[in-house]
Amino acid sequence: MNPADFAPEHFGWAFADGVATITLNRPDRKNPLTFESYAELRDAFRALVYAREVKVVIVTGAGGNFSSGGDVHEIIGPLTEMAMPELLAFTRMTGDLVKAMRACPQPIVAAIDGVCVGAGAIMAMASDLRLATPAAKTAFLFTRVGLAGCDMGACAMLPRIIGQGRAAELLYTGRVMTAEEGERWGFHNRLVAAEALMSEAQALAAELAAGPTFAHGITKTQLSTEWAVSIETAIEMEAQAQAICMATNDFRRAFEAFAAKRRPVFEGD
Amino acid sequence: MNPADFAPEHFGWAFADGVATITLNRPDRKNPLTFESYAELRDAFRALVYAREVKVVIVTGAGGNFSSGGDVHEIIGPLTEMAMPELLAFTRMTGDLVKAMRACPQPIVAAIDGVCVGAGAIMAMASDLRLATPAAKTAFLFTRVGLAGCDMGACAMLPRIIGQGRAAELLYTGRVMTAEEGERWGFHNRLVAAEALMSEAQALAAELAAGPTFAHGITKTQLSTEWAVSIETAIEMEAQAQAICMATNDFRRAFEAFAAKRRPVFEGD
Amino acid sequence: MNPADFAPEHFGWAFADGVATITLNRPDRKNPLTFESYAELRDAFRALVYAREVKVVIVTGAGGNFSSGGDVHEIIGPLTEMAMPELLAFTRMTGDLVKAMRACPQPIVAAIDGVCVGAGAIMAMASDLRLATPAAKTAFLFTRVGLAGCDMGACAMLPRIIGQGRAAELLYTGRVMTAEEGERWGFHNRLVAAEALMSEAQALAAELAAGPTFAHGITKTQLSTEWAVSIETAIEMEAQAQAICMATNDFRRAFEAFAAKRRPVFEGD
Repeated sequence: MNPADFAPEHFGWAFADGVATITLNRPDRKNPLTFESYAELRDAFRALVYAREVKVVIVTGAGGNFSSGGDVHEIIGPLTEMAMPELLAFTRMTGDLVKAMRACPQPIVAAIDGVCVGAGAIMAMASDLRLATPAAKTAFLFTRVGLAGCDMGACAMLPRIIGQGRAAELLYTGRVMTAEEGERWGFHNRLVAAEALMSEAQALAAELAAGPTFAHGITKTQLSTEWAVSIETAIEMEAQAQAICMATNDFRRAFEAFAAKRRPVFEGD
Repeated sequence: MNPADFAPEHFGWAFADGVATITLNRPDRKNPLTFESYAELRDAFRALVYAREVKVVIVTGAGGNFSSGGDVHEIIGPLTEMAMPELLAFTRMTGDLVKAMRACPQPIVAAIDGVCVGAGAIMAMASDLRLATPAAKTAFLFTRVGLAGCDMGACAMLPRIIGQGRAAELLYTGRVMTAEEGERWGFHNRLVAAEALMSEAQALAAELAAGPTFAHGITKTQLSTEWAVSIETAIEMEAQAQAICMATNDFRRAFEAFAAKRRPVFEGD
Repeated sequence: MNPADFAPEHFGWAFADGVATITLNRPDRKNPLTFESYAELRDAFRALVYAREVKVVIVTGAGGNFSSGGDVHEIIGPLTEMAMPELLAFTRMTGDLVKAMRACPQPIVAAIDGVCVGAGAIMAMASDLRLATPAAKTAFLFTRVGLAGCDMGACAMLPRIIGQGRAAELLYTGRVMTAEEGERWGFHNRLVAAEALMSEAQALAAELAAGPTFAHGITKTQLSTEWAVSIETAIEMEAQAQAICMATNDFRRAFEAFAAKRRPVFEGD
């Protein structure tokens, strides 16, 4: 992937100053996901592993909504006709999108307005940070279409973000989590006015992009990999991971800047 | 178990419209648990695995309290006289109650008023969803009788519901968590007036009972089994679990209803 | 260690009524940590495993601040000159401090005012309970010096205290968590006025010291060891751990006190 001229078919892409912006972009239908957009998103996040120029990713939706999730006609209909091997291939593909979002080293900032449901809510959940407007409505709708709440990692990830009791309610009932609840429960990092959503997301992304990019990637790795290990193992993992970061140039740059009483300028290596 | 004529000795039982209601029912002593009621509750939840007619379980207490926990005279006294093999047999039996509550496929709604302490607080914690009145007082009292906070899974489950710091305080001190704290911290899903507690619990249970029962059981399984696995493993587990649900009739029913612009009617298979 | 005459070089120590108070004590520089103080703190917490007279530990800072973390000149400068084996030796030593704080049986109460950043924030996080003043400012500053947020267990422990989304924000950005946020998010158990901080911490410590000391140690062990095991395993672990506690004298003392309608006096065995 060359981020400067990457031109995906099924979502919007912009790249400037180290920040890539992915826009779910079919606003007449509230930005649903389709077989093609799932696959192309998965491939894009996989390619980001090697795109060192990209330091931060913003994910958002066009036209005042984040995403309506898997399209009823384009996805749910065909699924009802599939044999088990195809069904598993589909659920693995959607899961692969989440795995790819967690595996790329760039922090992902979701900028969420309006409808954020189903697989859209999962993409928000799989991001690292979430800014939302007061109108954001997040729902894990799977139960409404006769499915389980366990889609793309939701039963593992959502309880760690908002707690097991609140996650259970959202996953069993499919009800909307309001923006206010999302902020109060720790799903949204911050609520911002709709007109400020993109500028706030860009400011946060710019702040992260100005940080130690290599170290941010290690933070992301550790936030995922220490999930299911003992405390002792986690501490040893961090001893190794942080020792690696202490051997980077950005660490030295920070010390030199402090010693010279100036602001450090990180270069990401 | 035939839910229509199940008649337990040590707790109340009602069954209607797919919803079983278990009532801890010794209100003069605030519904304590005894050796017999622990065992009978454990056996009931184990039998629920095979009771497909039961789609949701409500657990509540009679007379304005949920439960005062293990009875001081009937349980704690005898325990102080027991040899280690008997002690371990007892703690395993109480732990088996929690395992059985987690292992049955029905979502469990706890409806909590008044005193909810000791093993009563554990039964609330082991439920999937919790509605409480403003008068609900929840306390993990074990420390007050000279025991550790680690009873029936509390040190594992409570931190995942309300966070490690708050759980530590409740488990070390045994202090009451007020209803307001419980809601704010994510232990209670919602506070409702005492006179509305049972009707709200029944409405929530009815909503769940009208949902895709098989899929709800899978949601419950995944909320427990993905607890201590890596993100990648969880995502693969969900790919398999959701593919199973996509092969159910309820998934097809939902699509057909959407296509026909009517509300889906789930039948649980 | 004899707690009555222990005289560490690099931090303050007081011991009375079963409560040891550790004071980070270099107020002119906001109580930074140095190579020597890390090592001496680690050794002190390790020695506490065998100091049965010490029932609770308070950790605090002198002069209106908790700790400014690893000293820029005394620690960060030298680290920028080290080869990898020395770097790993350092990160392992700091991680060993957290391991030692988790491994000693005494509940640790952090009393936090003012600056609480870097390794200071980690020491607060590694405590069991946290009281703070409204002026407490907690920040995981590692990113500001070009490092990753994964320091001394932060990527494993912080998400379990405040949730994955909020932890990610603090670890990626290094921004201050205000005292109010800390209370709201479950990092601080309670906010208290600065002039009441030590008396409130002492009252809480005294309450814990009056409790069943052996059982408290088991609570602490289980809160750590059940972190990454299945629910079923956790429940079996607790069945064993609680059966041990039921064989203690404090459990018998509690029952006898209840039977005699007096307050139990625990002796810790």
